Amino acid sequence: MTAPVYLDCDTGIDDALALAYLLASPLASVVGIGTVSGNVSAAVGARNTLDLLSLAGAADIPVALGAHDPLAASFHGGAPWVHGSNGVGEVELPPSGASLAAESAAGMLVRLAGEYPGELRVVAIGPLTNLAQALELDPLLPSLVESVTVMGGAALAPGNITPVAEANIWHDPEAAALVLAADWDVTLVPLDVTMTSVLEESHRQVLLASAAPVPRALGEMLGYYFRFYEGIYGRPCSAMHDPLAAALAVGAVRPALAPVVRGAVDTSDGPGRGQTVCDMRGLYAGYPEVKGARCRVVLSLGEDFAPHLVDTLLKLSPVPELI
Amino acid sequence: MTAPVYLDCDTGIDDALALAYLLASPLASVVGIGTVSGNVSAAVGARNTLDLLSLAGAADIPVALGAHDPLAASFHGGAPWVHGSNGVGEVELPPSGASLAAESAAGMLVRLAGEYPGELRVVAIGPLTNLAQALELDPLLPSLVESVTVMGGAALAPGNITPVAEANIWHDPEAAALVLAADWDVTLVPLDVTMTSVLEESHRQVLLASAAPVPRALGEMLGYYFRFYEGIYGRPCSAMHDPLAAALAVGAVRPALAPVVRGAVDTSDGPGRGQTVCDMRGLYAGYPEVKGARCRVVLSLGEDFAPHLVDTLLKLSPVPELI
Repeated sequence: MTAPVYLDCDTGIDDALALAYLLASPLASVVGIGTVSGNVSAAVGARNTLDLLSLAGAADIPVALGAHDPLAASFHGGAPWVHGSNGVGEVELPPSGASLAAESAAGMLVRLAGEYPGELRVVAIGPLTNLAQALELDPLLPSLVESVTVMGGAALAPGNITPVAEANIWHDPEAAALVLAADWDVTLVPLDVTMTSVLEESHRQVLLASAAPVPRALGEMLGYYFRFYEGIYGRPCSAMHDPLAAALAVGAVRPALAPVVRGAVDTSDGPGRGQTVCDMRGLYAGYPEVKGARCRVVLSLGEDFAPHLVDTLLKLSPVPELI
Repeated sequence: MTAPVYLDCDTGIDDALALAYLLASPLASVVGIGTVSGNVSAAVGARNTLDLLSLAGAADIPVALGAHDPLAASFHGGAPWVHGSNGVGEVELPPSGASLAAESAAGMLVRLAGEYPGELRVVAIGPLTNLAQALELDPLLPSLVESVTVMGGAALAPGNITPVAEANIWHDPEAAALVLAADWDVTLVPLDVTMTSVLEESHRQVLLASAAPVPRALGEMLGYYFRFYEGIYGRPCSAMHDPLAAALAVGAVRPALAPVVRGAVDTSDGPGRGQTVCDMRGLYAGYPEVKGARCRVVLSLGEDFAPHLVDTLLKLSPVPELI
């Protein structure tokens, strides 16, 4: 019932939600975490991850530093207007005393895939640089993992960093192209479903009222995140990008509609750069099976994700270090 | 009440529907028609247009031959699998004795814009080569026309000729880019609304039962068109791309949702080539006004278009030449 999970993240407010969700979920056992530059630099993301793990009493989970730069460019500097200058909405987390693992994120992913053959669930919620590097490190990686779930892209929804590109894919289109072209099935959790899965102020208040430090910290971070999203939705609330990908990866929530289509990534220098070019032309016939297609695009959920997310986060223990 | 219309087309089965619709509509007076390569070559499209006009008793409407090749490439050869080898679903129309006008399509558009200052409605239902050439011929064209309505593109819907590109735009992306960048407002009638506006077999049967030759010929052509679209929809029926653009242009039908957004065209050589990159990111806040945006993207209609289309086509006179 409990699946080993490798989480690849750029922590980030919604990454923090995803991490906390996976720590709280009875379906997941996080066996390793790699960081990558995206919302913040890989190093800042690693620091945030270590601090959150300590706050959750899970400092024993190894965290590996991943790629600072995307495959074909330099790190652009992050998105402080979305996630705050420190990546966690200016919330000051108690500094963890834990150290980074003595391996790269790509190396960790390859190692864990070998340690849990056929079992490891790869949950990628940042740019896909580490995954692309892991595929290069071990071309047999696709045969070893149980599943790959990626928060990223936009199929029939608008992009968020350009009219057609979603930020995780846009930050490293070359890496995303390699990941979608590799010999594995990929579940894409795109803006189509994450932008319609909304966390409201009422949910945030429940987190803030928790006795546990992690839900409270998340509630504070979400205050920052909500202010950014107020410009998108016209009210204080937020999308639930990363935690939704985590919940789908461990099977806690199920898609209502998730056609398997051909997917590629635009690596041109045109206005489509960073777009996930998903072939959704089966739409009008209810998405008939496409031979050779390997990209499962989650378009909608059967039920609202927010209550499940909040309920799960509240399972985090108030004083975990004393248990 | 009756608006002068310049129709730019690549006749084509749905172009034939649009042409017949405009001839039948009390809101439109077609004052000139230009052809362009797309569904068929510009020359074959001109022949089909002349034949249809004669069959409708409207052989006095001038038809000008337009561009054979797109701006930056050679004509690709048309889409016989959609429209038949002759462009009108293998239906043999009685040959018209009329000749082509002694001007180019671009020249005709510029002339008509001058003759009907502030009144001319430009309805473009093929690749936009002629419009781009007209803009080059007369840079003041945008200040002279009443409106520009383009059947083309895909905003949040899949493409039809690639996963993200619609055929009219894909056939000449460079021309489409010039048209969307020119100093005029453009109403885009994209696949979002044309693919959800469906003509069914019951409508086709009504046309076939008409006493008038044009509706009957259209009903026969639609048999061919329906067979292509059966592969898309899973049943014999068709989208109504071009006639819908015509009806919107003359104000006979109104959009339910048509945000005005920034629009551009991907002219790269990447997988996004030919895509209309419409910035739909206002979606989540109900499309707030975007300063400087000039591309009105029709996303949905208030009512089903098919009954209005069929009713209008049936107004075409049974024996027009005797009236």
